[in-house]
Amino acid sequence: MEVKVIWSEGMAFESHQNNHKIMLDAEARFGGQDKGPPPKTLVLSSLAGCTAMDVISILNKMKISPESFKVKVEADLSKEHPKVFTRIHLTYFFQGNDLPLDKLEKAVNLSQEKYCGVSAMLSKVCPLSYEIITESA
Amino acid sequence: MEVKVIWSEGMAFESHQNNHKIMLDAEARFGGQDKGPPPKTLVLSSLAGCTAMDVISILNKMKISPESFKVKVEADLSKEHPKVFTRIHLTYFFQGNDLPLDKLEKAVNLSQEKYCGVSAMLSKVCPLSYEIITESA
Repeated sequence: MEVKVIWSEGMAFESHQNNHKIMLDAEARFGGQDKGPPPKTLVLSSLAGCTAMDVISILNKMKISPESFKVKVEADLSKEHPKVFTRIHLTYFFQGNDLPLDKLEKAVNLSQEKYCGVSAMLSKVCPLSYEIITESA
Repeated sequence: MEVKVIWSEGMAFESHQNNHKIMLDAEARFGGQDKGPPPKTLVLSSLAGCTAMDVISILNKMKISPESFKVKVEADLSKEHPKVFTRIHLTYFFQGNDLPLDKLEKAVNLSQEKYCGVSAMLSKVCPLSYEIITESA
């Protein structure tokens, strides 16, 4: 795997990965112009995306299709440098009629315990907890 | 800090962080449609962006401005699930005339040893090495 970030101006960098391009920037209070997400929030996006893709893939195999699905990540940062996550909490929201909670739990647990590489890496850094919320459509 | 990813279709998710939106997707060989970068490459973008912003910020304080600057990240993944990084190597490329190598090294070392939170987190996961390459403009 290979990724490049190329300085644009100020604190803004263009990140190139395969054929995709993303702008990264710092917030104004950290000297940037907020032209793109800052790096640490992007780590949280990666975490949420990694486990969310696992869950959808596992639910596909179980022939379960929620009407909507999202994952929220909340995290705290240490006060001192280097600023690292001190706590991460994931909430999996499923919406749909007659969704089997036991299978949703199984899919989420499989991702967290077996498949999600980003979760496995970040759980070496700080406690990582999660919950599941279901709603009828 | 809070981030949400919302299921779009297939393996594609829209990630929302503050006022920025990014599409994440899996590559075709993993069942996606490659509509955006996959989560693990995004972790590497975050790493490169985090340390690159540190370096530019430190060089600003030193009144040093390279003509161009980029950071490349190469990483290996484990073969077994959960797939985690087993090695990460960063290359810092600076271009400019009369760039003081000792100060570039100091800026990079300060980022790696003191400021870069994403480097600090990933160095708990696997060995993280780095090198500096300078070129005249």
